[in-house]
Amino acid sequence: MRVSTLFARTLRNDPAEAEVAAHRLLLRAAFIRKTAAGIYTTMPLGLRTTAKIERVVREEMDAAGSQELRMPIVLPAEPWRATGRYDAYGDLMFRLQDRHGREFVLGPTQEEVVAELAQHELPSYRDLPSNVYQVEWKYRDEFRPRYGLLRGREFLMKDAYSLDRDEVGMRESYQAMYDAYVKVFDRLGLDYVIVEGDPGQIGGGVNHEFMALADVGEDLFVRCENGDYLADTEAATPRPPDAAPDEEPPPLTEVDTPGAVTIELMSEQMGLPAEATMKCILFDVEGRSVAVLVPGDREVNEEKLARLHFPARVRPFEDDDFTERGFAKGFVGPQGLGSNVTIFADPAIRGRAHWATGANRPDVHVTGATFDRDFRVDRWQDLVQFREGDRCPVDGGRLEIARSIVVGHIYQLGTYYSAPLQATFQDEDGSQKPFVMGSYGIGITRIMSAAVEQNHDDAGIRWPKLLAPFEVAIIMANADASAVTDHAERIYRELTDRGIEVVLDDREERAGVKFADADLVGYPVQVVVGARGIEAGTVDLKVRSTGHRSQAPLAEAAETAVDLLTTAP
Amino acid sequence: MRVSTLFARTLRNDPAEAEVAAHRLLLRAAFIRKTAAGIYTTMPLGLRTTAKIERVVREEMDAAGSQELRMPIVLPAEPWRATGRYDAYGDLMFRLQDRHGREFVLGPTQEEVVAELAQHELPSYRDLPSNVYQVEWKYRDEFRPRYGLLRGREFLMKDAYSLDRDEVGMRESYQAMYDAYVKVFDRLGLDYVIVEGDPGQIGGGVNHEFMALADVGEDLFVRCENGDYLADTEAATPRPPDAAPDEEPPPLTEVDTPGAVTIELMSEQMGLPAEATMKCILFDVEGRSVAVLVPGDREVNEEKLARLHFPARVRPFEDDDFTERGFAKGFVGPQGLGSNVTIFADPAIRGRAHWATGANRPDVHVTGATFDRDFRVDRWQDLVQFREGDRCPVDGGRLEIARSIVVGHIYQLGTYYSAPLQATFQDEDGSQKPFVMGSYGIGITRIMSAAVEQNHDDAGIRWPKLLAPFEVAIIMANADASAVTDHAERIYRELTDRGIEVVLDDREERAGVKFADADLVGYPVQVVVGARGIEAGTVDLKVRSTGHRSQAPLAEAAETAVDLLTTAP
Repeated sequence: MRVSTLFARTLRNDPAEAEVAAHRLLLRAAFIRKTAAGIYTTMPLGLRTTAKIERVVREEMDAAGSQELRMPIVLPAEPWRATGRYDAYGDLMFRLQDRHGREFVLGPTQEEVVAELAQHELPSYRDLPSNVYQVEWKYRDEFRPRYGLLRGREFLMKDAYSLDRDEVGMRESYQAMYDAYVKVFDRLGLDYVIVEGDPGQIGGGVNHEFMALADVGEDLFVRCENGDYLADTEAATPRPPDAAPDEEPPPLTEVDTPGAVTIELMSEQMGLPAEATMKCILFDVEGRSVAVLVPGDREVNEEKLARLHFPARVRPFEDDDFTERGFAKGFVGPQGLGSNVTIFADPAIRGRAHWATGANRPDVHVTGATFDRDFRVDRWQDLVQFREGDRCPVDGGRLEIARSIVVGHIYQLGTYYSAPLQATFQDEDGSQKPFVMGSYGIGITRIMSAAVEQNHDDAGIRWPKLLAPFEVAIIMANADASAVTDHAERIYRELTDRGIEVVLDDREERAGVKFADADLVGYPVQVVVGARGIEAGTVDLKVRSTGHRSQAPLAEAAETAVDLLTTAP
Repeated sequence: MRVSTLFARTLRNDPAEAEVAAHRLLLRAAFIRKTAAGIYTTMPLGLRTTAKIERVVREEMDAAGSQELRMPIVLPAEPWRATGRYDAYGDLMFRLQDRHGREFVLGPTQEEVVAELAQHELPSYRDLPSNVYQVEWKYRDEFRPRYGLLRGREFLMKDAYSLDRDEVGMRESYQAMYDAYVKVFDRLGLDYVIVEGDPGQIGGGVNHEFMALADVGEDLFVRCENGDYLADTEAATPRPPDAAPDEEPPPLTEVDTPGAVTIELMSEQMGLPAEATMKCILFDVEGRSVAVLVPGDREVNEEKLARLHFPARVRPFEDDDFTERGFAKGFVGPQGLGSNVTIFADPAIRGRAHWATGANRPDVHVTGATFDRDFRVDRWQDLVQFREGDRCPVDGGRLEIARSIVVGHIYQLGTYYSAPLQATFQDEDGSQKPFVMGSYGIGITRIMSAAVEQNHDDAGIRWPKLLAPFEVAIIMANADASAVTDHAERIYRELTDRGIEVVLDDREERAGVKFADADLVGYPVQVVVGARGIEAGTVDLKVRSTGHRSQAPLAEAAETAVDLLTTAP
């Protein structure tokens, strides 16, 4: 490919709207162009790179026994209503009507389509397990699209779906996909971690996120400073404080605390640090009262509490609940709570011998509240929200929050979609059973962005050779010298004949512009053919990722470029 | 691939909704599945075949210097309003709003996007010519989708766009695409013709349709029985009748024809055949009157008349026009029409020495109306609508209407899109000029359907080897015999090792079911491994397209299959 005809005009200046490197450099280097907010044209360079990502993904999916098909983008709304996702997605879903007024959506993912397809194509347990995938554009009407392809409204995904007879089969299918994903992301050379995800929406099951590390990533996770623990921020279970040493606790003593309905007011009036106080938070679980005990300086992880009780619905007490059930709002403590209240306590409550907490009378608190002597716990359960600085459950190291771009996400879905859609197969005993499903996503356009975030410098992108749109750039430093043209054309032919993907920068531009563009686009190896070099019988070579520069005899230019490419990252 | 795990359940019976072979067989053989009216899931077999079509298309587009990119499907409505296509498409266009109420369309084609892209990417005449293409799904909200992929609402197209500095450049770009299309359709093995299309919507330019012959096709064209003439039905220009021999015409004579306002009534009352009468049809061209003379048994091709006058608007006379301009509706003849009326005549008017026509007075006609003596003609112009049985302009042979499926369509657009969108480049003289464009479509999913229409029999599809989802099927006629399994597996390995795409039918089904499925899906070569054959030391082979059957020694099965595949169509 000659750069003079390449449909790729690089931009000198940073586009104003681009906040992160992946967005800025993919625009400047002409990999993408904005068509509308969050909607991009993939330019020829971008298409070559995404095609390379797709190829790796397809190879590993095929090797894992998944079969490629292609589902429509415009989908009837009915199945999405049946599973509840039509409403759950809300404004995030693009919706439209056809000329007859029938309702459609633009697919954000395709569980509903696969479940209905399986219902017809896989009638018997003998047809299971099965696994299908597609590589297709997906749609989410983001309120505020940004970061280019990272939070776009149109994005390219590989989505796969496994269909099994039972949970055991689903877990095997899930593991096969997990292993395939490791191969994909290893091959793509991404710096990534695998984090067991929070089940997210209630009813969700086991899931893992494949997170490419990136300072600008919006997807947070928790890791130990020593590298031996990773977790979703919602699912992180820090090591609780060491149990307090045995000591004789002080007696339970009431203290007047007029109006001290918050931890802040209470610790101020009592002259105690917040971490010496104990919150006793009340929830309603379908009519039953549940108390959760956590240290005063911590918050309750309500999502986790809700999942513990699923499918029962959990909500915090409202004013009426306190009145009707006889609790003193702002002054509740666990002492003396009857068996009609289930008491959960976070293990951190074992970290102190005694606590200041509510006295269950307005305007009064107690000090010296001691587990077992003054209050009972029905269930010890990790329920504090994670906080930076918490201790690692493995080695006690400091836990910190890190940023990433989620490039893959796999889910054990069970019958969450197949049951409401009545997508069933006939089992060996003749009964109809819903498929037990898994779903598996890889963000193709996200990977391109993540790779740029992980591989760039001030001058531009430093593509790993596997993802580069072209492997070698030949730069004619003096386009008007016929000796330069002759040698550059010869090297171009020699490299092309060897099956290398080459661009030849034959533009009538200054050498400096060509060097800057080659660095910006990020070709892994650059070969510079100039008049001075030809006089000396040499070409200059540069490896983009390392910045390593070398020279080679004119006749060995192609061979040297191939050698450099072989050893380049 | 083992058929036992292939995601492709064949259907025993013809689906009720399928009217044509391409639809029926692609459903039965599990190449496609309906998701909604006119919207299909491409199943694994269908995906393999479309991928093969895409590969041929990409190779020829790349070889012709076009560069692949990918444009969004969800497109802002504004540019479509600017070119007038937002309204012109009407209900055919899927429309939607995003969460902020902004209007979008689902792209039916992408001239607007390319013009706007070029405006930024190709600022100078030095950047021209340029040519880009994509392979992407397109959308048309057909009122009555039918014939499966033939008239679907979601369909896969390759669309390309050329951008040139001037008309000369555009025509060169157009010719390069024309040549590339010939290579594509030749390689795909389609039986097709190339027909210069009617410019269609007024203002359109030169265009050609690549039409795959198919009895069920909805796209009609005209061809000579001797094979030396092809034309669009709208653009066909039949040879006019031979000029009438010189003879002394009878005098112009008035005949009372009360109420004879139609050719039928007039010829009945006058006792003359319709072909001896002459119609004189009046049109308004922005205030001016135009008369068109055609034989009484022919119709005026109004589209052609409109194009002759473009951009002036042409409409047939209404009642008020007759009254206000003093014409006797139903009794108009060309005799004595003043210079304020422009008289067009079809060359067929030369086919008779004299005509019966209107006398320009109510309830009166004339006989003996003779060109030059009784009426003038301002312009001779082919203006009759084509009719089956007309004579070929090349050799006078009989013209007939044939049916086809349009699989490619190329257009010279000129500045039709770039001008209203103000998509310009700076020319050498510093002036801003609109790009001179061409656009070039190939229907990928249509090609799959057309190939089935051209290659099938009662038993199923007979894929040409280039388009078959797999090249060879190995059928285990007795799945329970271990010798059969051993040999079949060995042949499967041998063929796979040779790079052949093979399926192994290892299902626990009767041999008859497997034979029927292999014929239905249409694998080009079948290898049957059965217990009786093994005893005799042989396998049976069949070439699907020819029905040719043969045997080969067990050890030579793979080699023989490869030989048969090599010579198969």
